[in-house]
Amino acid sequence: MGAFAIPVRVYWEDTDASGVVYHASYLRYMERARSDWLRALGIDQAALIREERLQFVVVEAQIRYHRPARFGDELQVSVLLTERGGASVTMAQEIRRGGPDGELLLSATIRAACLDSDNLKPRPLPASVPAQP
Amino acid sequence: MGAFAIPVRVYWEDTDASGVVYHASYLRYMERARSDWLRALGIDQAALIREERLQFVVVEAQIRYHRPARFGDELQVSVLLTERGGASVTMAQEIRRGGPDGELLLSATIRAACLDSDNLKPRPLPASVPAQP
Amino acid sequence: MGAFAIPVRVYWEDTDASGVVYHASYLRYMERARSDWLRALGIDQAALIREERLQFVVVEAQIRYHRPARFGDELQVSVLLTERGGASVTMAQEIRRGGPDGELLLSATIRAACLDSDNLKPRPLPASVPAQP
Amino acid sequence: MGAFAIPVRVYWEDTDASGVVYHASYLRYMERARSDWLRALGIDQAALIREERLQFVVVEAQIRYHRPARFGDELQVSVLLTERGGASVTMAQEIRRGGPDGELLLSATIRAACLDSDNLKPRPLPASVPAQP
Repeated sequence: MGAFAIPVRVYWEDTDASGVVYHASYLRYMERARSDWLRALGIDQAALIREERLQFVVVEAQIRYHRPARFGDELQVSVLLTERGGASVTMAQEIRRGGPDGELLLSATIRAACLDSDNLKPRPLPASVPAQP
Repeated sequence: MGAFAIPVRVYWEDTDASGVVYHASYLRYMERARSDWLRALGIDQAALIREERLQFVVVEAQIRYHRPARFGDELQVSVLLTERGGASVTMAQEIRRGGPDGELLLSATIRAACLDSDNLKPRPLPASVPAQP
Repeated sequence: MGAFAIPVRVYWEDTDASGVVYHASYLRYMERARSDWLRALGIDQAALIREERLQFVVVEAQIRYHRPARFGDELQVSVLLTERGGASVTMAQEIRRGGPDGELLLSATIRAACLDSDNLKPRPLPASVPAQP
Repeated sequence: MGAFAIPVRVYWEDTDASGVVYHASYLRYMERARSDWLRALGIDQAALIREERLQFVVVEAQIRYHRPARFGDELQVSVLLTERGGASVTMAQEIRRGGPDGELLLSATIRAACLDSDNLKPRPLPASVPAQP
């Protein structure tokens, strides 16, 4: 049961004047992988908010930066569901240079809660979020 | 009748690996000046959307980049209303290094329309937007 | 002689709380298209800076925002060289929803200069930048 | 021995279409506080890179998101040195709404290493980084 992964190219917008990718840009990359993973599961986040007033919110992030990426690099960004609670999910994410077996640049654990869009209180996850492997 | 202006510090987030401020970051700086100017006029944009379903949207931008800014620079970002239409405003904006008389880095003309948040059709400007000088 | 174009997906990072894509995000999309176009021409911007101290810098941008994009949209972002000067290039760029014939969201004219990375003075364009069509 | 803190205003650029501040924007806020703290200590990061080929790089981030911020909020972002190693520093950071005693929105532990800008290997911290309280 492998991880879901997407390719991400590094552009100028992602880097900073120290010469490498800005540390917060990797969080944008990881969010793209999570959004594409949800879309692949048939979950339309925009419709969820609009029709069910339900949204995913990151509540905890543990991130280890191993090696920097640079302008022009092509990265692989993965997401693997590791725990499905009643109102939250925990995911392991990795960013590698090159292909899926490339050098590990970043590893993270991200926990997202499912909240009511109006009062920001916890709500049960949509049924389409699978049980963990 | 002078322009409204705010100080803006350049951080790593604003720069790119070519060593200077990323060209789109200046648009973020100009939007901060416009938002603070509206707030100074007593216009609460969040309340406008929430209560009146009214929002400002940039519809045209003409930007000339004269000199780059760098990490750590303290900039002055100004906004001057140059034309008040029925459903849109045109503003002249400048970004200078140092104080209000510092070196000119960027000059722009920005036109923003007032739109209905639901159908994105033009709506009259709030009365609190002043006539141009 | 058609334009070069890339697909771009809209993620949460690109949007703002007014519900649509933040106006500066489109400049990031256009820069991605320009960088991929240069790469397709065999121009490695990182190597240009590192080895020849040469970089492209946006010096003028004229942008018209026609319609907003939203979270989840798949866009097409194009770039077409319209003028090749000795030390600068002018490009026409468009952003459309869906495919190349989709609804026009944004049209822009972007002029970029070729500068010396050390003193930011104009330098001749690399020979690999083609003459305009 | 209190924490160093700066005020940060939330602008449109920081929010996303779910209506609140985008989760990666808080990392930008925290970096602003760290950069201003270093400047207050007399450490000029741009000069460090240019003259000593020395830069700070985030190597670990543990972040807990308690409550969201919204457009227009004025936040207080603090940084407190909790551990000074030979080549890295660990800092506790908080983001609160309103003043220093306002509601806690985010708490984080950030570890940054001091690296050689050329080979990205660890280097001793500048002497101007103080011992922890």
